[in-house]
Amino acid sequence: MPIRVALLGTKFMGKAHSQAYRSVNMYFPDAPQVEMKVIVGRNAQETETARALYGWQEASTDWQKTVARADVDLVDVSTPGNLHCEMVLAAAKAGKHVVCEKPLANTLAEAERMLEAVEKAKVRHLLMHNYRRAPAVAMAKKLVEEGRLGKLYHFRARYLQDWAMSPDLPMLWRFVAQSAGSGALGDLGAHIVDLARYLCGEITEVAAAMETFIKQRPVAPGSSRKAKVTVDDAAAMVVRFKNGALGTLEASRFAPGRKNQNTFEINGSKGSVEFDLEDLNVLKFFSTEDPPDVQGFHKVLCLAKGVHPYASAWWADGHIIGYEHTFTHTIYDFLKSLETRSKAHPDFVDGVRNQAVLDAAMRASAGKRWIRIG
Amino acid sequence: MPIRVALLGTKFMGKAHSQAYRSVNMYFPDAPQVEMKVIVGRNAQETETARALYGWQEASTDWQKTVARADVDLVDVSTPGNLHCEMVLAAAKAGKHVVCEKPLANTLAEAERMLEAVEKAKVRHLLMHNYRRAPAVAMAKKLVEEGRLGKLYHFRARYLQDWAMSPDLPMLWRFVAQSAGSGALGDLGAHIVDLARYLCGEITEVAAAMETFIKQRPVAPGSSRKAKVTVDDAAAMVVRFKNGALGTLEASRFAPGRKNQNTFEINGSKGSVEFDLEDLNVLKFFSTEDPPDVQGFHKVLCLAKGVHPYASAWWADGHIIGYEHTFTHTIYDFLKSLETRSKAHPDFVDGVRNQAVLDAAMRASAGKRWIRIG
Amino acid sequence: MPIRVALLGTKFMGKAHSQAYRSVNMYFPDAPQVEMKVIVGRNAQETETARALYGWQEASTDWQKTVARADVDLVDVSTPGNLHCEMVLAAAKAGKHVVCEKPLANTLAEAERMLEAVEKAKVRHLLMHNYRRAPAVAMAKKLVEEGRLGKLYHFRARYLQDWAMSPDLPMLWRFVAQSAGSGALGDLGAHIVDLARYLCGEITEVAAAMETFIKQRPVAPGSSRKAKVTVDDAAAMVVRFKNGALGTLEASRFAPGRKNQNTFEINGSKGSVEFDLEDLNVLKFFSTEDPPDVQGFHKVLCLAKGVHPYASAWWADGHIIGYEHTFTHTIYDFLKSLETRSKAHPDFVDGVRNQAVLDAAMRASAGKRWIRIG
Amino acid sequence: MPIRVALLGTKFMGKAHSQAYRSVNMYFPDAPQVEMKVIVGRNAQETETARALYGWQEASTDWQKTVARADVDLVDVSTPGNLHCEMVLAAAKAGKHVVCEKPLANTLAEAERMLEAVEKAKVRHLLMHNYRRAPAVAMAKKLVEEGRLGKLYHFRARYLQDWAMSPDLPMLWRFVAQSAGSGALGDLGAHIVDLARYLCGEITEVAAAMETFIKQRPVAPGSSRKAKVTVDDAAAMVVRFKNGALGTLEASRFAPGRKNQNTFEINGSKGSVEFDLEDLNVLKFFSTEDPPDVQGFHKVLCLAKGVHPYASAWWADGHIIGYEHTFTHTIYDFLKSLETRSKAHPDFVDGVRNQAVLDAAMRASAGKRWIRIG
Repeated sequence: MPIRVALLGTKFMGKAHSQAYRSVNMYFPDAPQVEMKVIVGRNAQETETARALYGWQEASTDWQKTVARADVDLVDVSTPGNLHCEMVLAAAKAGKHVVCEKPLANTLAEAERMLEAVEKAKVRHLLMHNYRRAPAVAMAKKLVEEGRLGKLYHFRARYLQDWAMSPDLPMLWRFVAQSAGSGALGDLGAHIVDLARYLCGEITEVAAAMETFIKQRPVAPGSSRKAKVTVDDAAAMVVRFKNGALGTLEASRFAPGRKNQNTFEINGSKGSVEFDLEDLNVLKFFSTEDPPDVQGFHKVLCLAKGVHPYASAWWADGHIIGYEHTFTHTIYDFLKSLETRSKAHPDFVDGVRNQAVLDAAMRASAGKRWIRIG
Repeated sequence: MPIRVALLGTKFMGKAHSQAYRSVNMYFPDAPQVEMKVIVGRNAQETETARALYGWQEASTDWQKTVARADVDLVDVSTPGNLHCEMVLAAAKAGKHVVCEKPLANTLAEAERMLEAVEKAKVRHLLMHNYRRAPAVAMAKKLVEEGRLGKLYHFRARYLQDWAMSPDLPMLWRFVAQSAGSGALGDLGAHIVDLARYLCGEITEVAAAMETFIKQRPVAPGSSRKAKVTVDDAAAMVVRFKNGALGTLEASRFAPGRKNQNTFEINGSKGSVEFDLEDLNVLKFFSTEDPPDVQGFHKVLCLAKGVHPYASAWWADGHIIGYEHTFTHTIYDFLKSLETRSKAHPDFVDGVRNQAVLDAAMRASAGKRWIRIG
Repeated sequence: MPIRVALLGTKFMGKAHSQAYRSVNMYFPDAPQVEMKVIVGRNAQETETARALYGWQEASTDWQKTVARADVDLVDVSTPGNLHCEMVLAAAKAGKHVVCEKPLANTLAEAERMLEAVEKAKVRHLLMHNYRRAPAVAMAKKLVEEGRLGKLYHFRARYLQDWAMSPDLPMLWRFVAQSAGSGALGDLGAHIVDLARYLCGEITEVAAAMETFIKQRPVAPGSSRKAKVTVDDAAAMVVRFKNGALGTLEASRFAPGRKNQNTFEINGSKGSVEFDLEDLNVLKFFSTEDPPDVQGFHKVLCLAKGVHPYASAWWADGHIIGYEHTFTHTIYDFLKSLETRSKAHPDFVDGVRNQAVLDAAMRASAGKRWIRIG
Repeated sequence: MPIRVALLGTKFMGKAHSQAYRSVNMYFPDAPQVEMKVIVGRNAQETETARALYGWQEASTDWQKTVARADVDLVDVSTPGNLHCEMVLAAAKAGKHVVCEKPLANTLAEAERMLEAVEKAKVRHLLMHNYRRAPAVAMAKKLVEEGRLGKLYHFRARYLQDWAMSPDLPMLWRFVAQSAGSGALGDLGAHIVDLARYLCGEITEVAAAMETFIKQRPVAPGSSRKAKVTVDDAAAMVVRFKNGALGTLEASRFAPGRKNQNTFEINGSKGSVEFDLEDLNVLKFFSTEDPPDVQGFHKVLCLAKGVHPYASAWWADGHIIGYEHTFTHTIYDFLKSLETRSKAHPDFVDGVRNQAVLDAAMRASAGKRWIRIG
């Protein structure tokens, strides 16, 4: 029996998730079959175009009806954050498994309601933090779990972009707290908080500073009327982890030349790793167990078949794969978890904990003090 | 009217070409529609598996019948090199457009017959040298054509891999001159000769050395019986170009740690560029026109929408794309050329010229002297 | 008239400063002549050895007498931090110009007394934060001052080493608050606070976390008796600058593979720069004013004669210079300032402000809140 | 008894060698003492200036008398190549040990006479190919000798600069065959031939192409009169080594952005190394013996005390050293060889063999065929 999917959302994330459903059976023959049942958008014509391009069987503009359809097994919520809550609640209520694009919600309260809903409905839930499944990130996780970094001392990450720097860039939903929750913090910071928790464990305490560099923006392209930006352009945190490690996390949209620099470094008693999403197949690894005269960071292209996570599905050693397949891998793992009735990760529990960190960071910045979490 | 494709070949290249036909309409909505009609392989069961995974409508084991089908417009030849000639001849005779995986043929004589056939049949022909369509390579071409490197002095390339180094690796068709034509020269060298010709122009003269480091290999895994390797493990050339530039080209399967290092550097009177396939979205660019105090190689991530070749089709600035989309781009351009009835590149003329260089290199190495080409 | 120097200190910094006095006239013929008068250490034999190796005229074990000598113009204090204060006070009282190795002092109170002393004595004073004079750092300063980065938004730095990670490493003066003031914070953090202030301006506010990962160490090599480590192994800060920029600063001795990674990145409205002391002749520079299709970080080797700061003194373009010449450059600039009776930088005013930041960081970490500075 | 040195030459190489004699006893206390006796130049005033700056006891304009002085033990010939022969002959005749800057001579015949002279005189002789003593190059040699690269298959090197590219750059001695012997070949190619022989063994066969891109140059700055350039701007070779390895060597002064890129890569059955003089403290190393999941080039900063060649003399792990100390290390090793009466390397035997390769390359290029050596 194929798994029949309904996708809510037709834009960037709708396209990225479509790609994953479209590719997963080609590259991962052992995955359950996917049936790309229906894509849902607000605008009928745009949705029909998306349907045809991405390969869905049907297009719809009615998400409520869609999530309740008997011939749908899995609902994928790829809409803006402020819509996640009601959509997930409806899908859970209808007994569908749920994939939700990050961030889980715009507020901690919403996130908690969503978790409660999926747990009550006993459906499977996945939060799409796709970067966990870059082969190099999965390899970093393997090194941590096998103890090859030893005891962890530092987790240091930043996610930098530069698309928001022009003062002429007009207001978008991303610049408004009501629709976006927060700015760089929720958009980019949520990713590095997820990687921090995945690779280094729970965060227990946070100090933070948030800043809005461009405080007003034109209401429309070229307009001289301006509206207030109500989210952060950048956020910086110092955090402490449950395992004793010290963390520094930074998210900014104001770093010229950094297009998608989601980078982290972990230092442990036996070694270090470093990753950068702009070079996403590479993991740099330092081991104190190498012979002293050749110690240095290894530049590992994590694409060796039979060796690196997910690599066997792809082309050949050294033939790089792109950003979109972090989604393919995540959907693969989720399909397998449906088949084996096991837990997938990250799930909505992760989403709630992530949101708790972001929430604490906002209060820490506003209150100019450390905030404990959990 | 969609373009109906028959694909001959189900292995690595069959999969890569399938991916291109499968993706091109999703990412390039302006391309003519593709109909993935039929895939052809030798083994019925394997071919059916490939059909299902890659999304072809039909599977067949009879290539002769397939290339003659009335409901096929385009034949894609993705089989080993020794089969190219007869397949292309048949397809041309049947009046089909032809895509042929590189190298065009195993010998210059075959290549010339194939060119003659497609010209006589007045069908369109494309040789799949996919690396021309990595965005960074296309960007290098743009810089050359716009004169931003000035007069060209040097073209320097190497294509290094390491998969063939173990003496325990048994005989494969790739180690036999009869099936493979040559070794590293035809497999890897053909790619860099194509890039050399594309970016720097025709090669007029060549000196070369070819070497087989492992001269005998087990006839089968673990066997103590050995057979003679009749192709090169490595080939190195010094060449001269028509435009006066000096070139060094090297191909080897004996470079530990180089998984897919297809790298070139061009030096001109006004600047330089450098590319490496292991980091395929990046072009390094040096310009003598930068202010003196900030002159240095720019590391350009060739993924800016509206700016870099092919980038608008993809995800967002800085979100890298993979090896497979060099095929997607090539098929896109070929489909457009069919639509507009214009020449695509590289075509079989390029294939013949490329083969002439490889042929000259083999004679230069054997005769220990320079050979003129053309 | 040559400038007659007395150097207090014979160890790592004594050697590095000696090198500078010894080299400055060879590479900078326009500098005033230096006379390497006398080197002072605690142990007579070691000091005589240092004298002979480094090229001082005399050796002495009596620093008090030495700083008062009539034939000494300049006293260079290269001893551990807890000795700086009384030595500088004596030198100032004797009317000598003073060079002091960083950190200026172990406490803010001491630093303030030292500043008061040199100002009262009207002698010239230099604090040896040598990294300001790496050509690439001086080039970064030039770009900032010429407005080529625009308005500054971010300053992000870390100084990572790994020499202290073994739990078997015994107690040293560096692990004791009384002798060292603080650990990574004062040793490494002082450097990045200096670069932050130099390149981005005054710091107004700080939140911080400090951590001691190895809390006890053997009292001697191999000993089973342990003593308490009373300084930090790592310190992380989020800071705000007077100009509105946001900063993240981190210092650690627990980063395997990072031998001397003093790295910073500055993001401004028009561009970015990046520096790493492990590759100290290189500055990476991104400009939004480059043509869009070749935007990317320039890797600038800051060694072009007649173009980059200090480069004309050295070998040839692309011939790298070493760590020690950051000292040579600093001494050169100080000698020139003595000749021209102009202010050198950084001076003890900078030292006091630097110490105020470190002091605030310690209080911020202990009090779990933001501390305002100045 | 100190070793009393006479240095012939006051320009770039005179300065670099002076630096070495001046620094060697400071950083290598176990070396025999050097007495910087006398520096010799053509112009009295320039020579006196050099004497004062570099720290020689005396200045002279009479090289013949100087090399015969009883109070001179060692003659260092740092003059242009066309003067080497007669100076070395005179020094040898006078029974002095000889250091000679590379290339040993402008012709093979001269080189052979020089070797004969020093052998007959039974004096010690050193050819200054300083790059052998970059710590990273010495480390590469160690890996080769310890068998950690296995059997060698490839040696691939290029030495690229860009200073000669402007057609307005007037004639210099370096552009004239009579004074310079050859162009890029003898200037840059000699270095990589030395590294090739040092690291991979004797070269037995060569094919080559040489080219002069700017065929005429102004006789003086700004002049409209032009003279013919009689040396190569670039040279490329394919070579075979005695051990069966294949080599590609390239030297050019026409590579924009490459200031001093002397880079090589060695591939062997067990691993690879890569080096670049623009980052001279780093060796990249790949080992097939690393665990498969972390195989990748190690970036080794060859500066660990007690671990890497020469590193113990310097500052601290990760504190980089500059170009000039490749000379310091070479002089150190030569002084030790004088003390221990052992052979130093490279010596004039190496110089003759190197010249034989360059000589063969010129004939191979002119004759358009392979030339055997030795």
